[in-house]
Amino acid sequence: MVKLTNEIKDTLAAAKFAWLATAAKDGTPNVVVVAAFRLLDDESLLVSDQFFLKTLANLEENPKVAISWWSDKGGFQIKGTAAVHTSGPVFKDNVEWMKVKWPRFTPKGAVVVKITDAYVLKAGPDAGKKLL
Amino acid sequence: MVKLTNEIKDTLAAAKFAWLATAAKDGTPNVVVVAAFRLLDDESLLVSDQFFLKTLANLEENPKVAISWWSDKGGFQIKGTAAVHTSGPVFKDNVEWMKVKWPRFTPKGAVVVKITDAYVLKAGPDAGKKLL
Repeated sequence: MVKLTNEIKDTLAAAKFAWLATAAKDGTPNVVVVAAFRLLDDESLLVSDQFFLKTLANLEENPKVAISWWSDKGGFQIKGTAAVHTSGPVFKDNVEWMKVKWPRFTPKGAVVVKITDAYVLKAGPDAGKKLL
Repeated sequence: MVKLTNEIKDTLAAAKFAWLATAAKDGTPNVVVVAAFRLLDDESLLVSDQFFLKTLANLEENPKVAISWWSDKGGFQIKGTAAVHTSGPVFKDNVEWMKVKWPRFTPKGAVVVKITDAYVLKAGPDAGKKLL
């Protein structure tokens, strides 16, 4: 696992949306927009699941994920391994958080990504470069 | 292959950015933002490659891609199979197009995606549903 830098955390906090990619066992990628996410600590990102369909099916086969975002402050890509919580304290915390953040949606899961890598997303000669 | 509907094409035309996901042979997904893309016809999307790194390495191992976008008019996810052109007429056309669209960047490739599927991206009970 890696600890995100303040620069990476600042851009994530400024991003309204992020793009979550998974892959099926046969290598077919999937990418969806997510809006309910937050860092649990410097190494772990929580994404609340309201409507995941292919994402969830892929995570059952292959827990590897990639998440990219762009904000007014810039953006990055992180990669990691996801665990899906549908009960227990992590799930309950997510339900409570979503009651405040987005009361019209009821989470059916909490996806916790342990972050293993971070990369430059910005266009230019450093695009795609591994940072962490 | 599938033919995109006018609704899907309208949202794509209105999107400034799209998010291109690929996957390595070992199942690690990758997702990057792209800004230089256009439909070649109702079944084929061109993405100009200026800075692809992991995307290109993944496409060499596995040509399957997923692309999602969101615009003021809405958004969708499409999936397909990509071919990378680094010479020949498709590549040359892309170089000419980019001279007008983004003269400060020189393409190193043209990624042509033959579209095989389209899905709902919007949050709600239909999220993730297959359309085409």
